[in-house]
Amino acid sequence: MKIIDGNITNVKGFSAVGRAVGIKKGKLDLGVIYSDRICNASAVYTKNSVKGAPLIVTKEHLENGKAQAIVINSGIANVCTGEKGINDAKQMCELVAKENNIDKENVLVASTGLIGAYLPMEKIKKDLADVIHNPKTCNIAEAILTTDLVKKEICVKEDNFTIAGIAKGSGMIHPNMATMLAFVCTDAEIPCEKLDAMLKKAVTNSFNMITIDMDTSTSDMCIVMANGYAGRVNNEKFQNALNFVCTELAKKIAKDGEGATKLMEVYVKNAKDETSAKILAKSVVCSNLVKCAVYGNDPNWGRILCALGNTGIKFDAEKINVYFESKSKDDKNVENETIVKNEIIVKNGVTANFDYEKIKEIMCKEELKIIIDMQSGNCSATAYGCDMTEEYIKINALYTT
Amino acid sequence: MKIIDGNITNVKGFSAVGRAVGIKKGKLDLGVIYSDRICNASAVYTKNSVKGAPLIVTKEHLENGKAQAIVINSGIANVCTGEKGINDAKQMCELVAKENNIDKENVLVASTGLIGAYLPMEKIKKDLADVIHNPKTCNIAEAILTTDLVKKEICVKEDNFTIAGIAKGSGMIHPNMATMLAFVCTDAEIPCEKLDAMLKKAVTNSFNMITIDMDTSTSDMCIVMANGYAGRVNNEKFQNALNFVCTELAKKIAKDGEGATKLMEVYVKNAKDETSAKILAKSVVCSNLVKCAVYGNDPNWGRILCALGNTGIKFDAEKINVYFESKSKDDKNVENETIVKNEIIVKNGVTANFDYEKIKEIMCKEELKIIIDMQSGNCSATAYGCDMTEEYIKINALYTT
Repeated sequence: MKIIDGNITNVKGFSAVGRAVGIKKGKLDLGVIYSDRICNASAVYTKNSVKGAPLIVTKEHLENGKAQAIVINSGIANVCTGEKGINDAKQMCELVAKENNIDKENVLVASTGLIGAYLPMEKIKKDLADVIHNPKTCNIAEAILTTDLVKKEICVKEDNFTIAGIAKGSGMIHPNMATMLAFVCTDAEIPCEKLDAMLKKAVTNSFNMITIDMDTSTSDMCIVMANGYAGRVNNEKFQNALNFVCTELAKKIAKDGEGATKLMEVYVKNAKDETSAKILAKSVVCSNLVKCAVYGNDPNWGRILCALGNTGIKFDAEKINVYFESKSKDDKNVENETIVKNEIIVKNGVTANFDYEKIKEIMCKEELKIIIDMQSGNCSATAYGCDMTEEYIKINALYTT
Repeated sequence: MKIIDGNITNVKGFSAVGRAVGIKKGKLDLGVIYSDRICNASAVYTKNSVKGAPLIVTKEHLENGKAQAIVINSGIANVCTGEKGINDAKQMCELVAKENNIDKENVLVASTGLIGAYLPMEKIKKDLADVIHNPKTCNIAEAILTTDLVKKEICVKEDNFTIAGIAKGSGMIHPNMATMLAFVCTDAEIPCEKLDAMLKKAVTNSFNMITIDMDTSTSDMCIVMANGYAGRVNNEKFQNALNFVCTELAKKIAKDGEGATKLMEVYVKNAKDETSAKILAKSVVCSNLVKCAVYGNDPNWGRILCALGNTGIKFDAEKINVYFESKSKDDKNVENETIVKNEIIVKNGVTANFDYEKIKEIMCKEELKIIIDMQSGNCSATAYGCDMTEEYIKINALYTT
């Protein structure tokens, strides 16, 4: 498997465009992903019981497991918009279908942004044809962003196939969801049912293990499209590549959490079973108090044990060891090697009498890994999140205006 | 029922003292509540599976439903402190028992503050006798505070009895807990089993309906002591008074949430059953995004519907109405009347096309009530919380140091 410096357009048969049509002020806000032939496609969706109109329409259009295009806008989520919202979402699909001369049932739609507002359909109608027919650059990864600061894309080559994905998400992000918006394209040939199973597997350990603020959005979805140009592929290698693409996108989302300064990775090991490991890891990554402590480079480990205890899962607190680990580049080294530093904080449930300065040095890096050894089994799980800062509050206190 | 300007010492037979003994720097940090005769007593505790040493000892001492004193310190929580922690908690009880010449089994203990550190027992031993024998002022409500800004106490007279309570709590506060620390004293005569049932009932709709940051502490407890001086009482009136005292203390905790500028009350009405109403109300009051919007006076109601949808409870989003209501004093009116302003935000699941300026005016008051009409039954519940501000982050990023 090789990571290449590319994007969705590096996958045979796929094109992707993004443009500013005025839904947001002066920013890219509308994009289309298109395959020149029909794809097998699969998706996972939000578990929020309030579901956005685009999600309802996409689900309907994906019932037969086929798709050829996805139209995506940012700025307005088209959620809580009643009958008009459904019609607007359908119309977006129809417009893309007409311009590409394809079946409207094969067009999927996704929207992200403010809840409760209606889409400016006139602007979208006016410019969509132009977006499709004059694809100047591939800015799709930028067009789907809202409060995100960086675009999130990855492209991987393995054997005879290529797989690439883009994602967006910075706020309203929480486990037990499909994900925020993520779109993965591949030229591998995979039957529909297999694609479904593989996507579920990949999402479970990637997007479903990130949290930024405990709020599961009404619009989350992750779609994979496989157009088959590369022919049959090795299943195991494809699953691995799909897992990798989803995990990398998930980490990029976590790192770009609203107001975040750091990626926080919580690795729970030696738990009694996998479900417990996941719940424990998620609880730590979700705790506002842990997130604040990570921001302040404060080894306030009591909050970690408190978060573990809050899960309701039975465990022996006196068996728990906690380690902090950082990875950083060595600036002095010409090879730019990665240096891993690791210190024990908690030994058998009580303070390990750690060196405060050493811990601060680990905590101040851009990526902090919290390793929690439950010493009570052999199952593990990793959850991804970020720290919590004043900036998070600022962004969210004044988002509408 | 009459609220009087008093505290625990206004209840016949009770004394309460607080002092600075050096657990915290220059702040009151140790207190004792004492009844001159043995009380029937009951308590509810945290559901966090990591439990503090004081909680374990208190539970043991309360097995027979009798208590005569409570010793409380702030600054250090005595949690995750192993065998030594248990011994320290027991020793605190023994010291109080010895000085008052009472049974050590009738002394309860509670600690709040940093997790993982050991109590400075020498300081406590040195000063505890003096705290008990030289009660200068009743500063107990102040001695139990940590990051709280104001002390929380209330005293109520009804019929022949008096009931008074104090509480502390500002961070690590979340529903599904016993509560933070709350101590309620009364001279009513109530049998143990009845006191248990009445306390559970009162806590369910008060302390268990507040949240500040979703983290249930390891040390939460609420204790009620009834010394019987007032003789038998009317049960219904006593339950009402107990409910009132617990709810007022809970609201005071919510309003004094870390960094908070406002009390947020979420009232869910016309839900299909009481459990659903509670879960829905709590989910809204817990949402970081709602809390930030309330801070920013931003009527971003999509976040409210998103939080309702996150509960997993089935409901018809197209039936939901949402109102914002504020209560404030009329400065111009000599009688200082309370003015209630109420506006509809969401009508049947979509925007009610409200007047933005009117809503801002409601939101900028110190107490905001969010009324959510589910239009699908006749059950209701109220949850209490606060807004989320940059100050919350600052307090929690550097709490240890």
